[in-house]
Amino acid sequence: MAPEFRVIGVTGMPMVAAGDDLARQIVEAAAAQGTPIAAGDIVVVTQRIVSKSEGRVYPLDDFVPSPFALAYATWSDKDPRLVEAVLRESKRIIRQAGPVLITETRHGLKMANSGVDASNVGGMDLVCLLPLDPDASCRGIRDAIRARTGIEVAVVMTDTFGRPWRLGQTNVAIGIAGMKPMRDYIGMTDLDGHVLRVTLICVADEIAGAAEMVMGKLDAIPAAIVRGYAYEAGEGAAAEIVREQPLDLFP
Amino acid sequence: MAPEFRVIGVTGMPMVAAGDDLARQIVEAAAAQGTPIAAGDIVVVTQRIVSKSEGRVYPLDDFVPSPFALAYATWSDKDPRLVEAVLRESKRIIRQAGPVLITETRHGLKMANSGVDASNVGGMDLVCLLPLDPDASCRGIRDAIRARTGIEVAVVMTDTFGRPWRLGQTNVAIGIAGMKPMRDYIGMTDLDGHVLRVTLICVADEIAGAAEMVMGKLDAIPAAIVRGYAYEAGEGAAAEIVREQPLDLFP
Repeated sequence: MAPEFRVIGVTGMPMVAAGDDLARQIVEAAAAQGTPIAAGDIVVVTQRIVSKSEGRVYPLDDFVPSPFALAYATWSDKDPRLVEAVLRESKRIIRQAGPVLITETRHGLKMANSGVDASNVGGMDLVCLLPLDPDASCRGIRDAIRARTGIEVAVVMTDTFGRPWRLGQTNVAIGIAGMKPMRDYIGMTDLDGHVLRVTLICVADEIAGAAEMVMGKLDAIPAAIVRGYAYEAGEGAAAEIVREQPLDLFP
Repeated sequence: MAPEFRVIGVTGMPMVAAGDDLARQIVEAAAAQGTPIAAGDIVVVTQRIVSKSEGRVYPLDDFVPSPFALAYATWSDKDPRLVEAVLRESKRIIRQAGPVLITETRHGLKMANSGVDASNVGGMDLVCLLPLDPDASCRGIRDAIRARTGIEVAVVMTDTFGRPWRLGQTNVAIGIAGMKPMRDYIGMTDLDGHVLRVTLICVADEIAGAAEMVMGKLDAIPAAIVRGYAYEAGEGAAAEIVREQPLDLFP
């Protein structure tokens, strides 16, 4: 029997607002389109709908620029309030790549602009910040789906990252619940009998990328279902994926 | 209608040897398991079966170590012949990360050990090197599938890469035919009306990662079919994904 899985976009979700019950919205939208959530599904959600449901959208005017933010904003021709928001979301700045700040967030994520998204809604400038604890957010969605339906799923939250050595961006996992992020090949041998040079595959990031293929970036499909993939259940966390030091600076 | 695609492992492939007709083997194995290749499929193949079919497997004894290879092998406790093979496959060494050489290959790929795999078959030490031109290999498979079946597919060749800032490895695309590697969002706006900060998604790498989820790393399933994903057809190349300078060294 050939291994196979499906990746299904969840359409018809309402525009998410602060306080919304994402689990309910996803369960209802999935059922309405004829693909109700089932045991063993991986429910994938974008960072943006989780941030919105958790009230992590703020008026840009809330961010009064520091002198450094003002200076950098002038130099890089950016909105100083947006620079201030990025700086406040950063634990440290890894690199200033032209107008982009490559930062480390409170979660240890190394990414562009600390994941801060700017938008303009009804004439007001807003910023959307990453959830404070994406793993906890995923556990909350997983628990709420279980409470509502009795069904056990895994949950993956995605965001879009650049890669130091490759062009284009891909979705990766910034939050996880109900599954292990890695599949472990340590000590296994292949058909030729040799010990694999690959030891740890980050399936959570592969799932996040696969889900992006149906979700896209336009917010109309902010959730997806990965169905039929035999993930390793357990209390994994996206925090396990974070490298503290970059690979190319190892001694 | 919800967007949906399937990822199907191709089982029952023979052990691939030099000169084998991969297109025929994949077409026959896919048909035998009840999922014959169809128009619009993306056929994903591992680097290893392509390398094997192209005769890129050599006795380790073919690689007579240079003085530097000998010195480095002693220091890092590795086989000096293997070190020599890695060095010959490298255009330059980016970093020496403990016993791992992060190199740039002739294709511009930045990866561990130039993608050289060691194995022992029947008591003989062998190395498997990357295909000389993975994009050309993919075009060859695409053309051979078309010649055999009349069906137009895209082809993606995968290998497994580490990531500088994230733990675990994922599959990425090192060869492409019949599709564009990137999906372009430049100038597009989302539901909130703001211009997307994401401009270019590397769908080829997301496809490669999704296929890894059914192929695994044990060589028993060295090909997969991604079905139902509306890729952008065209003459793309994985060479387009390669960054010449790392992101974090931009001025």
